[in-house]
Amino acid sequence: MSSKMQEPKIKKISALSSEEAKWIEFNKIEWTDQTGGSRIWEAASRKTRGASGIDAVAIAPILLHPSKPASTLIILQYRPPVQAICVEFPAGLIDAKETPEQAAIRELKEETGYEGNIVDITPTIVADPGLTTANMQLAIVEVQLNEGDEEPEQHLEDGEHIERIVVPLNELYDRLMAYSKEEGKIVDARLFHWASGLHFAKLNAEKYRL
Amino acid sequence: MSSKMQEPKIKKISALSSEEAKWIEFNKIEWTDQTGGSRIWEAASRKTRGASGIDAVAIAPILLHPSKPASTLIILQYRPPVQAICVEFPAGLIDAKETPEQAAIRELKEETGYEGNIVDITPTIVADPGLTTANMQLAIVEVQLNEGDEEPEQHLEDGEHIERIVVPLNELYDRLMAYSKEEGKIVDARLFHWASGLHFAKLNAEKYRL
Repeated sequence: MSSKMQEPKIKKISALSSEEAKWIEFNKIEWTDQTGGSRIWEAASRKTRGASGIDAVAIAPILLHPSKPASTLIILQYRPPVQAICVEFPAGLIDAKETPEQAAIRELKEETGYEGNIVDITPTIVADPGLTTANMQLAIVEVQLNEGDEEPEQHLEDGEHIERIVVPLNELYDRLMAYSKEEGKIVDARLFHWASGLHFAKLNAEKYRL
Repeated sequence: MSSKMQEPKIKKISALSSEEAKWIEFNKIEWTDQTGGSRIWEAASRKTRGASGIDAVAIAPILLHPSKPASTLIILQYRPPVQAICVEFPAGLIDAKETPEQAAIRELKEETGYEGNIVDITPTIVADPGLTTANMQLAIVEVQLNEGDEEPEQHLEDGEHIERIVVPLNELYDRLMAYSKEEGKIVDARLFHWASGLHFAKLNAEKYRL
């Protein structure tokens, strides 16, 4: 953080009325359950969903370099809802007329400067389906680097403050644990689940014949 | 689904006022950013968070059997916010005075009937930190089965309709793809990320020296 920068700080948290809300809305869902009973569910939605029908895309970058270990790229940014610096995969909302693939390439370049090719993208998945309508896709994006490449420049929007960190895949799980336990940062559940799956496979490949 | 059961159905979705909301609340967060600028963020929260300070726990069950492949257990349940049957790890809210570990063992038993031992639990992680305050922990729970064990009984709460499915770990990723692409179900992002990490490690262990 440069000398002009300061720590983000919460000034006030107050009740948000539905009339005042600009970016999210609140839904009362009346539904009939499996036994025919009438029930009510409460949910939050983003108002920003565009033509794709999908709110957001996240990117699992795979950085390949001739002489360095295969790595991924994670970002650190302050997240007011959880009042902490969060550790996440690069991600962002899909613009009104974009496809998830276009958004993945754009967001990776904006947030990290890196450009790559999508090698896989998930179907639409849901972030927290008991609480919100939020949905997303996860793209795996390979970035081929050459010996001596300099770190590219970020293209952040005004007001975005994002730090990017290159982490060898083999160190990802331990680094996320250290961010959580030693540095007071909070890891995004989706990133932690991906790292946990990778770590589980490495630990147990022989034992469970994975 | 037995003959008495019917497909869940949405009757009406309407705006939910903050006064009427029972389980969630809406926050207007006034904060100062890294450059000293005054900004506003909108977020949703659960009202149910108890003494642990953590909303929920999810369980990655690992079923070990003398003659069957190492498997996990996933659940299918209708989720009104996303108007679909979701495919998820067993999970649930932590009761007021429970620890995450106690909730993990309890929820696994209620939703699936299986009992196991926690072999690992994550730090607190956040489900969707740009939109909600929701947080959770993920427990990995080993369930040791014996030859000839019958499938245990679920202990569902009134109004819960949950189907459980045993899936060999080596088939998890393909099964989640099939649920998404062929069956019109929606996979939870956290489960899909765990499966994606596992799948990535299996595919690329040699190539990337994982």
